[in-house]
Amino acid sequence: MDTCQTGTIDITGCRVSLYPMKDQFANHILTSINETNTSAVWQQTDLFSTLYRGEPASVVDAAAALFINARDPQTHLVGEFTFSKGCPGDHAGDSYLNGQQATPNIVNNQNKGTFAVDCKYSFYAFGENNYMEEIAAIVALADEYGLHPQSAHYVTLLSGSASQLFQYFEAALAYAHKHLSHYVLEATISVNSPSKAVPDHV
Amino acid sequence: MDTCQTGTIDITGCRVSLYPMKDQFANHILTSINETNTSAVWQQTDLFSTLYRGEPASVVDAAAALFINARDPQTHLVGEFTFSKGCPGDHAGDSYLNGQQATPNIVNNQNKGTFAVDCKYSFYAFGENNYMEEIAAIVALADEYGLHPQSAHYVTLLSGSASQLFQYFEAALAYAHKHLSHYVLEATISVNSPSKAVPDHV
Repeated sequence: MDTCQTGTIDITGCRVSLYPMKDQFANHILTSINETNTSAVWQQTDLFSTLYRGEPASVVDAAAALFINARDPQTHLVGEFTFSKGCPGDHAGDSYLNGQQATPNIVNNQNKGTFAVDCKYSFYAFGENNYMEEIAAIVALADEYGLHPQSAHYVTLLSGSASQLFQYFEAALAYAHKHLSHYVLEATISVNSPSKAVPDHV
Repeated sequence: MDTCQTGTIDITGCRVSLYPMKDQFANHILTSINETNTSAVWQQTDLFSTLYRGEPASVVDAAAALFINARDPQTHLVGEFTFSKGCPGDHAGDSYLNGQQATPNIVNNQNKGTFAVDCKYSFYAFGENNYMEEIAAIVALADEYGLHPQSAHYVTLLSGSASQLFQYFEAALAYAHKHLSHYVLEATISVNSPSKAVPDHV
């Protein structure tokens, strides 16, 4: 799991789990997996999640598309995302580290990602003496992206459009990729929760 | 979020998010919240999660009950759990730190928690020079509890009965409470996934 040696692993990854709260959830998930352009990332689906691995921008691009493609106005959908760099594993995916940072879903994500989302997330940095400053930098970046970060127990809350949120994650991962050898960003994104009385579009 | 000072916060907490993959998910969640005995913990429900805070055994007891009470044989249910100690927040819940480690749901959890689950989880320890050893100790404990830990990208996989899994979490949190000033255990538990072709009972 976390038996990580720092400084040796350059590949970024994301585990995405989709939870469409509806009877026909399985087809909903599979359709979105098929609609997502994964030409720029290594991918694998297991019992819990779909994994994307590659360069930071490409991983966020695919993870964003998977969630954005799965959203429909009638469904309460939650996505759970674990972005990370620095954990060893196999070398599957290393062939995607070609320096291109390709984002083949970007137009789709911008066009379809205008709906409002809520997010809870935590950022963890390992093996750094100044990790508190790095976390503060990541949260400050959320403010710059207009996502109104607010503290809650064990997490920070964000709100904005889906497209805005994933643009922030791309910036956060680019920062983390440059400054940190090992980090984890855990995020849960919710859309169309019946607990919200606000309209779906920002 | 993670702007934590170590060594000053003694309260344990858990954020539990339930995802019943069915049209009538909202009532499903609310029923389980109402069925869970929370006499031993502080509780709060927000847009994402129900939070329990108190002593480690009491927090696991309530979190386990919320998931176990929500399980029914016809529903694919996923629960997302963030157990933590060491993050500052308000002092709500401190009155539950009475040394009793009460577990009012324990009989219910043992009787109803015989169904098979799969789990992915990660354990993070902060502010410790020997955190790799602490993580190894936590994973070794999963083996002792018969949960067959297996490595996967970014997580460790476990399998067993629900009751067995939460007993392990109680032991892991007791260990962490004793040895670590600040930790996070992130777990996702799945039951009745259509991706599994095995029966629901172990």
